[in-house]
Amino acid sequence: MHNSDLEIRVVLVEPLYEGNVGSVARAMKNFGFSDLVLVNPPELEGQARAFAMHARDLLDNAPVFSSISEAVRDSNLIIAATGNPGERVEEHIRMPAYTPCEIGKLLEGKGGLVSILFGREDKGLNNAELKGCDIIMNIPTSLQYPSMNLSHAVAVVLYELSDIKGGNMRLAERFDQNLMYDHIRELLNDIDYPEHKKDKTMLMIRRILGRARLSSREVQTIRGLIRRIQYRFNQTFSSNKK
Amino acid sequence: MHNSDLEIRVVLVEPLYEGNVGSVARAMKNFGFSDLVLVNPPELEGQARAFAMHARDLLDNAPVFSSISEAVRDSNLIIAATGNPGERVEEHIRMPAYTPCEIGKLLEGKGGLVSILFGREDKGLNNAELKGCDIIMNIPTSLQYPSMNLSHAVAVVLYELSDIKGGNMRLAERFDQNLMYDHIRELLNDIDYPEHKKDKTMLMIRRILGRARLSSREVQTIRGLIRRIQYRFNQTFSSNKK
Repeated sequence: MHNSDLEIRVVLVEPLYEGNVGSVARAMKNFGFSDLVLVNPPELEGQARAFAMHARDLLDNAPVFSSISEAVRDSNLIIAATGNPGERVEEHIRMPAYTPCEIGKLLEGKGGLVSILFGREDKGLNNAELKGCDIIMNIPTSLQYPSMNLSHAVAVVLYELSDIKGGNMRLAERFDQNLMYDHIRELLNDIDYPEHKKDKTMLMIRRILGRARLSSREVQTIRGLIRRIQYRFNQTFSSNKK
Repeated sequence: MHNSDLEIRVVLVEPLYEGNVGSVARAMKNFGFSDLVLVNPPELEGQARAFAMHARDLLDNAPVFSSISEAVRDSNLIIAATGNPGERVEEHIRMPAYTPCEIGKLLEGKGGLVSILFGREDKGLNNAELKGCDIIMNIPTSLQYPSMNLSHAVAVVLYELSDIKGGNMRLAERFDQNLMYDHIRELLNDIDYPEHKKDKTMLMIRRILGRARLSSREVQTIRGLIRRIQYRFNQTFSSNKK
């Protein structure tokens, strides 16, 4: 990447065609990126190498995993690229979505590992996969024909992100963020939050805190706040039982 | 295009691989563009149609010409996309070069037909072809591997130009601009401008007036100015002869 503090990783989730994987490697190298990770890719043979042109080193060095969680391990921020703008019925799964340009602005001054997930050529990322991401990104395309080629999407996104200036405002570690989300879910349980609303609310919270790009300190403060709520709640509960 | 006053045309100059032509058509339709023109393309058969996906109509409707001059006829502005940033030795052929983002800003509020030329996959546009263009565009890429795939380049450029707002400040007609350039060259002759500098100076003038995006009125005024210079020059010349 173009600076020491912010790293951008491209994660291809179950790409179907090896030619596209090669084209993605080329586009990455064109814009100065090198961290490519593959989740259940097809067999990469002659065509992938042919389309990669002078970026074959990226293909050769790309780690291959069988799950997204392994591919994004240690990522401070996980961004999902999606071709479909959100619809009302599935609110917060694909919404709010940011343009590559807006994502670039969100990352200005930040430090850490940012993984961007690109889904399958035919079906993109499924809802469960989208729920596991912090921020949704959507390239503004024509309503008449919104479905972009996978490597075109990567090229456009990396073009936009190639000149952002990262910084030393380091994003919170994934481990701590996960503890925070577990903690928030625990709180929802503690307050008897309606079961059928839990998942939706958790997702909304993830979208809000995801785009807020929390620092470690902020994550700790939120956890402290939740602990305090829980503590008071338990106190009240105990005194009520007396 | 996205508005009635500004039209963007993509001209592929002697593309080598039909798959790339198909991919370009798809990227164009993704971003809402449809004016595709081909100069000496390869045979477009199954692969071009396969890569075009749902943009086959663009392929089928793309006019084919045997020269660039036919392809850009009636264009108010001709932009050359080039992968190589300019070098000192060939100043003004590839310089100054603008990023797609800067080109977008140059076109804000303008009206007319803007043709963007993309060259061959291996050699791009040659110097003679670049000299015939008004503005040079260069996508900022990594110095380590600057050579982009043709359809990636088109995708990035159209992504950037897809949301510019044209307007009614109509660009001068190509016919009048050509008369103006002929007129300027005539003036250089009239003033005995050094022969070996003529081409370089003409190219510099074209780069300056190209990026200035002249209106018809401005072209007429410049021509009037040149006529006036010539008139005075001839007067002086006549009186000196007396």
